[in-house]
Amino acid sequence: MDKIRNDLMARLKRIEGQIKGVVKMVDEGRNCDEILIQIASIRSALNKIGIMILENYLKICLHKVNKKKKDFEEIENFFETFSKYVKF
Amino acid sequence: MDKIRNDLMARLKRIEGQIKGVVKMVDEGRNCDEILIQIASIRSALNKIGIMILENYLKICLHKVNKKKKDFEEIENFFETFSKYVKF
Amino acid sequence: MDKIRNDLMARLKRIEGQIKGVVKMVDEGRNCDEILIQIASIRSALNKIGIMILENYLKICLHKVNKKKKDFEEIENFFETFSKYVKF
Amino acid sequence: MDKIRNDLMARLKRIEGQIKGVVKMVDEGRNCDEILIQIASIRSALNKIGIMILENYLKICLHKVNKKKKDFEEIENFFETFSKYVKF
Repeated sequence: MDKIRNDLMARLKRIEGQIKGVVKMVDEGRNCDEILIQIASIRSALNKIGIMILENYLKICLHKVNKKKKDFEEIENFFETFSKYVKF
Repeated sequence: MDKIRNDLMARLKRIEGQIKGVVKMVDEGRNCDEILIQIASIRSALNKIGIMILENYLKICLHKVNKKKKDFEEIENFFETFSKYVKF
Repeated sequence: MDKIRNDLMARLKRIEGQIKGVVKMVDEGRNCDEILIQIASIRSALNKIGIMILENYLKICLHKVNKKKKDFEEIENFFETFSKYVKF
Repeated sequence: MDKIRNDLMARLKRIEGQIKGVVKMVDEGRNCDEILIQIASIRSALNKIGIMILENYLKICLHKVNKKKKDFEEIENFFETFSKYVKF
């Protein structure tokens, strides 16, 4: 889990840097199409993080199902979160 | 234009703060579903910024159309950027 | 305008065919990932049509502005539709 | 599974009808904004189908995980498809 956490932290830090970059671009009055390319790139990076967390979440749920035999309650919780996340 | 720029800067700063918040949540080992809600909220805020920039870009293009009478070339440029940015 | 209309009709007919194809895939019990690739392809084709109509709509509005000199009322109508369309 | 299949088939048939409706609107030269509302509605219906298939796919993957005890390979396959499909 620590490996995933470190990976996530590194990706989030990179996005923070990208946001700072866009602030600078807006401040300098750069062209809209250049800024939009950056926004689209941040959006992709954020999406990747969302999917990593979803995948990790499902694995955690599956471990709990196996250990505690509490049927599929955990999985149902996952599906609820999943549905909320994908309805965009 | 300065008004839009200031609005954009404020929104970007807020997203930067939200990203820092998610870094903290991951570091503290907070639940996946709580983190995903934050990610989805950042995604919405980012999309809103994208739409604002697109609309602003289109307005700039429209001004150029009127001034230079160069037909609809600028409009076509806009929709080329638009189609690259908007992916469903 | 007739050229755009014919192009749109041809694209819509193609999408109709693709939808029929997905119905057949679901009926035959084909794999989810194969079906999802088709859905994504239809979504792209639909998106392309939406952008073509938006672009055409804007050009029509611009013609009206030039002819009738009714300031930018027409353009404002376009922006209203545009905003509704991109908020997805 | 048959229940989901029938639901999907009914939804796809409805989209097919909506596409035919848009063909008719284009043919009759209806206003761009009216057509765009229809396109946006078809897009929503298509997205709903995509989410249903994704959820169904994930359920199938989860059944395979339990049955074959082959760790989380199936889950990883699912998220690979998911990340290809979901583009914001």
